[in-house]
Amino acid sequence: MDKFSFGLWTVGWQGRDPFGLASRPPLDPAVTVRKLAELGAWGVTFHDDDLVPFGADAAVRDKRITDFRKALDETGLVVPMVTTDLFTQPVFKDGGFTSNDRRVRRFALRKVLRNLELAAELGAQTIVLWGGREGSEVDAGKDVKAALDRYREALDTIAAYSESQGYGFRFALEPKPNEPRGDILLPTIGHALAFISTLEHEPLFGVNPEVGHEQMAGLNFVHGIGQALWQGKLFHIDLNGQKGPRYDQDFVFGHGDLLSAFFLVDLLENGGYEGPRHFDYKPLRTEDFDGVWASAAANMRTYKLLKERVAAFRADPEVQEALQASGVFEQSESTLDAGESIEDFIKADEDITAATERGYGFVHLSQLALEHVLGARG
Amino acid sequence: MDKFSFGLWTVGWQGRDPFGLASRPPLDPAVTVRKLAELGAWGVTFHDDDLVPFGADAAVRDKRITDFRKALDETGLVVPMVTTDLFTQPVFKDGGFTSNDRRVRRFALRKVLRNLELAAELGAQTIVLWGGREGSEVDAGKDVKAALDRYREALDTIAAYSESQGYGFRFALEPKPNEPRGDILLPTIGHALAFISTLEHEPLFGVNPEVGHEQMAGLNFVHGIGQALWQGKLFHIDLNGQKGPRYDQDFVFGHGDLLSAFFLVDLLENGGYEGPRHFDYKPLRTEDFDGVWASAAANMRTYKLLKERVAAFRADPEVQEALQASGVFEQSESTLDAGESIEDFIKADEDITAATERGYGFVHLSQLALEHVLGARG
Amino acid sequence: MDKFSFGLWTVGWQGRDPFGLASRPPLDPAVTVRKLAELGAWGVTFHDDDLVPFGADAAVRDKRITDFRKALDETGLVVPMVTTDLFTQPVFKDGGFTSNDRRVRRFALRKVLRNLELAAELGAQTIVLWGGREGSEVDAGKDVKAALDRYREALDTIAAYSESQGYGFRFALEPKPNEPRGDILLPTIGHALAFISTLEHEPLFGVNPEVGHEQMAGLNFVHGIGQALWQGKLFHIDLNGQKGPRYDQDFVFGHGDLLSAFFLVDLLENGGYEGPRHFDYKPLRTEDFDGVWASAAANMRTYKLLKERVAAFRADPEVQEALQASGVFEQSESTLDAGESIEDFIKADEDITAATERGYGFVHLSQLALEHVLGARG
Amino acid sequence: MDKFSFGLWTVGWQGRDPFGLASRPPLDPAVTVRKLAELGAWGVTFHDDDLVPFGADAAVRDKRITDFRKALDETGLVVPMVTTDLFTQPVFKDGGFTSNDRRVRRFALRKVLRNLELAAELGAQTIVLWGGREGSEVDAGKDVKAALDRYREALDTIAAYSESQGYGFRFALEPKPNEPRGDILLPTIGHALAFISTLEHEPLFGVNPEVGHEQMAGLNFVHGIGQALWQGKLFHIDLNGQKGPRYDQDFVFGHGDLLSAFFLVDLLENGGYEGPRHFDYKPLRTEDFDGVWASAAANMRTYKLLKERVAAFRADPEVQEALQASGVFEQSESTLDAGESIEDFIKADEDITAATERGYGFVHLSQLALEHVLGARG
Repeated sequence: MDKFSFGLWTVGWQGRDPFGLASRPPLDPAVTVRKLAELGAWGVTFHDDDLVPFGADAAVRDKRITDFRKALDETGLVVPMVTTDLFTQPVFKDGGFTSNDRRVRRFALRKVLRNLELAAELGAQTIVLWGGREGSEVDAGKDVKAALDRYREALDTIAAYSESQGYGFRFALEPKPNEPRGDILLPTIGHALAFISTLEHEPLFGVNPEVGHEQMAGLNFVHGIGQALWQGKLFHIDLNGQKGPRYDQDFVFGHGDLLSAFFLVDLLENGGYEGPRHFDYKPLRTEDFDGVWASAAANMRTYKLLKERVAAFRADPEVQEALQASGVFEQSESTLDAGESIEDFIKADEDITAATERGYGFVHLSQLALEHVLGARG
Repeated sequence: MDKFSFGLWTVGWQGRDPFGLASRPPLDPAVTVRKLAELGAWGVTFHDDDLVPFGADAAVRDKRITDFRKALDETGLVVPMVTTDLFTQPVFKDGGFTSNDRRVRRFALRKVLRNLELAAELGAQTIVLWGGREGSEVDAGKDVKAALDRYREALDTIAAYSESQGYGFRFALEPKPNEPRGDILLPTIGHALAFISTLEHEPLFGVNPEVGHEQMAGLNFVHGIGQALWQGKLFHIDLNGQKGPRYDQDFVFGHGDLLSAFFLVDLLENGGYEGPRHFDYKPLRTEDFDGVWASAAANMRTYKLLKERVAAFRADPEVQEALQASGVFEQSESTLDAGESIEDFIKADEDITAATERGYGFVHLSQLALEHVLGARG
Repeated sequence: MDKFSFGLWTVGWQGRDPFGLASRPPLDPAVTVRKLAELGAWGVTFHDDDLVPFGADAAVRDKRITDFRKALDETGLVVPMVTTDLFTQPVFKDGGFTSNDRRVRRFALRKVLRNLELAAELGAQTIVLWGGREGSEVDAGKDVKAALDRYREALDTIAAYSESQGYGFRFALEPKPNEPRGDILLPTIGHALAFISTLEHEPLFGVNPEVGHEQMAGLNFVHGIGQALWQGKLFHIDLNGQKGPRYDQDFVFGHGDLLSAFFLVDLLENGGYEGPRHFDYKPLRTEDFDGVWASAAANMRTYKLLKERVAAFRADPEVQEALQASGVFEQSESTLDAGESIEDFIKADEDITAATERGYGFVHLSQLALEHVLGARG
Repeated sequence: MDKFSFGLWTVGWQGRDPFGLASRPPLDPAVTVRKLAELGAWGVTFHDDDLVPFGADAAVRDKRITDFRKALDETGLVVPMVTTDLFTQPVFKDGGFTSNDRRVRRFALRKVLRNLELAAELGAQTIVLWGGREGSEVDAGKDVKAALDRYREALDTIAAYSESQGYGFRFALEPKPNEPRGDILLPTIGHALAFISTLEHEPLFGVNPEVGHEQMAGLNFVHGIGQALWQGKLFHIDLNGQKGPRYDQDFVFGHGDLLSAFFLVDLLENGGYEGPRHFDYKPLRTEDFDGVWASAAANMRTYKLLKERVAAFRADPEVQEALQASGVFEQSESTLDAGESIEDFIKADEDITAATERGYGFVHLSQLALEHVLGARG
């Protein structure tokens, strides 16, 4: 079974945008769980404040959690991931872990720590951390080096606490280049991976890349996921659609760069990723609830169709031949011979005429892929 | 003295672009050295093929190097950095270290290794590695994980050889998101730093970020340099100008995002970077040699002027007060008290009303900076 | 006196963004008028719903307008421009004039028509029309040709009505490429000007370009304004700051691409534009009201400083010489001689060697401008 | 038969890019014609200098043209369009029609005028004008208003001459935002259409939009083509692929934003465009000649496949129903009733509750389209 999961905040998005009021009423989390189960989802995820409104009292909290659990129990949906909202409330206007105001940093850190217990109780394995407000609009206003110290302090503290409690969580940082801040710290998969290499509990940390976030920086998402997998750090993933560098669109998966979505599914299915296929998208503001549920189903349907196309692509003998001809498999051979002496290697003269004149056949390969995407080859 | 350096390929660019032929004749390297010295530069850098044309015989090679050395001796210019061209020749059309063709990978690796001796003889401390052709246009055509294996193999080999020869080089990877390839591996400072964390000789590797390259991905260059400095990895830097996501423009430093250039100089001068201020730009194709030398001078002049503006900014008591008011200094305080118990910390209730209601004064700070840039405050 | 004007919605922005709640309380329009006057503004502008909340009853409406007028009378502030909000309410989720739903189109058109009377009473000369919701996320969902028919129908109707009432308004279309819609119709200055050329009342229509909107498409704002002026169509302008293709940032004027802001002020001051210098920006969400007013003042202060720099630039004899040397003035000479016969012209052979070899001195010119921006030349 | 045409410069591109030398030898135009015919093309187009090298003598010219004609005659390929190269030679470094140097403007104008006779002899109906060098990197270096005067002067002269000779040409301006100039005049479809509205011979002028050029500015190509068709100005089109704002990639058609390509084919096939389907792309530099011809074939194959998918999409009853439900057809109804009085209209109160609450079903429509693209619906 495909491990399709959705955030409560996705189908629950009410359509508030920078220029408009909500176009849909709120959704009750328990209703969402039942509806997602009906559509064939496997899991559901949430921010603390999606489930229990910020500032709610204990009674409200208990009721919301009880109802939610009941829906989970009835439907069999799992909660593979939980995250903490450090961006909606005005107190986080200059960030959470890296706010210039130490009082805010303390509040943010506490909010995350407090959320771990519920996550553990619900059986989550992964904690996502999106630092959407960690950043600045004004270069003079943020000491980046000090901010990264504070970021590290927060993450080291959280990991140490999780370990001390025996929660066994893995933590996935979610990069984004900008919006809602002018520039966000750890703007890409690369910056997050680099930062992680400096953490005390480095093995507990990986990334949760989002299709649209990398594409907002014009980066190749498939390449980014390739590097994350290569570094053993793809802990979770956010699937959606985006049309290049502009505001964060959060379209349905595939409803952006479709060829890239095809190669992404190829990499996820064949590249060793075992985690959830998590959709982090927004139903268009133009839709009513019928449209909301149609959009949820569309994410899963598109993934499945692309998975079929990928399987046919890989099984096509002409594709295998083209991959061979293009040297894709040859990339796995060491550049040096086993035990080759560098001194001898440097001196050697090897003829490169043939290598210079050869064609790589990349367009042919690309066209084969495109025709498989179009369902035009068997 | 400011350590201003220029690549031979910068002033020597002949103006060939994707739609046009050369508009200027070639420049002799020795002439370039003398002219740069006259203009006040401190150092000169080069690709192997800038100094000695690709495929030249021994006699030509000797003559070119002798003339170049003579010019260096006469002028006192140093050669702080040397790099290897793995992109101009057609053999590199699918990359160097990560070409799908193993013959090319071997040729590329050998080309870099062979270039080290000359670099050492000329006293270079830093070897820059720009993998501009390491990438793809077609996702199916590149096994990113295997390619990163090959990239690592090449770098580990080079570093081991350098150490074995006692060269003492440090190596600086130069990231770029795209152009000339559709997507380049290690597209940003972050991706390069992340990759470096996996290398056998990790301490020998850092980055050589270029202003325009990060800005082609819409990223905040000052933030990127902040993270590189924070990770102790800013080994070298390429200064120039760019107007956002589009082709690589290589304008004169400052002739792009001027406010960002101001904050960059602030960070370089006050953030602990001791290396060269290396200009990697192209004189506009519209210019004759008078324009070429004017553009070289403009890079240095702009840097110096910004350095003056930065000094005045930092010395302005109103700026210091604004930084204090914005909490910029407070970022350096630990979020937790020394020895604070996490268990107690989680339980505590701290009032956040004041932190929620406060203003950060970032626009005031930004305006103070802008007025210093404009030379409008003393 | 500089004709500086501000929208009520600018300083009045409460800080709601796609990921966060309001960080500031609402501002009373009359208070805004008084405060802007104090800071030295000349005019104030508004959307119908900024002044009178959507759906308010007649009593509220009268009170709000009376208070506003009183503040205008007391301060002497003028209302040079009024606009209509066709984007905030959910009814406009698929647009106003070009909604797929005819009921909405009728409602939108009526809303604009009804707003004209108040605009006339307050003495406005210009009506701005920003069609921020006229567009789509889904190509299949919008018949662009039919939508442009409806757009034209709406504008022709409005202009005819305005003329019939003797209001004497001029109408300024405000282009934007995207956000809040995935793609907005009339995305740039060019598209708006092209569309205007098809209108029945073409002379009454011009554009209201916004700095950040064109820069979101990576376009040169100064060039766009140049074309608008050349076509006699710059009816109004929205000044602010933006950092390239990303979400709409609405920074303070100059707090984006500073060099472009300099050349913009040059063109506005010396290129024949007589209208208001209207700031359409948002005070950062991190600011309290002190920061709000500081940001309003910063817009005007920056404009004035740039105007001084521009004056010095134009007055600098070295600049005049450089403009001459670069051929900037020569552009004003006809390519053909007066009365030259085309037949003879075609046959002629004119030597282009000198024209090929000359340099244009553009870098020198650019550096002179940059040094004037920095206040580094007298 | 599909009217597929190719420029000589497309398959003939030798692979020179800003960082690399040619990777392929030149192609003889006559060979190209025969090969394209074999692959099923209908037409071929060229720049003057593609067919006859710049500066060639009369003998070379005659030979090249004779051979080319012979190949055309033998194969039946037509020459529907001809264009003039005003960008390759260094003389055009500051532009052609709008160079700051009047000598260059005269040379450029003469070059275009001289090229018309050959175009007429070969039966071309359309003259494309791409002003790739008309622009600037330095705002101070170009008087945009004067440059537009010169642009207009050139175009009015050309059109007048064409009419005087009875050639009957139509002229298609090709917009591009940047590259090779920092910013190009007439950067988008919109700017070109707006400019055209000012020309003396306006009816003779239309646009030749290129997929990648608009996408370099992040604009929706389908919307742009929609406006061009609506204004009756789509005279020609350049089909290719691009991955958003970055250097001009000129990929095979469809090998960029595939969903957009689908909607483009829909609009071209069903929106009233009768002209050539012209591919203006570059075979990747990694390819040998086998790859070159494979890439040419791929353009046509992709177009045909998308045409099939479009036909199935339009024929699908569920799609028709979804279009109806989304109100796409309703867009064609006038907003006002025939003869409706504006005075009455303004006063009327129409209930908008239902229009506010309805969903537009755009995601459903989008998903139907995507599934047709994937060949997943019959």
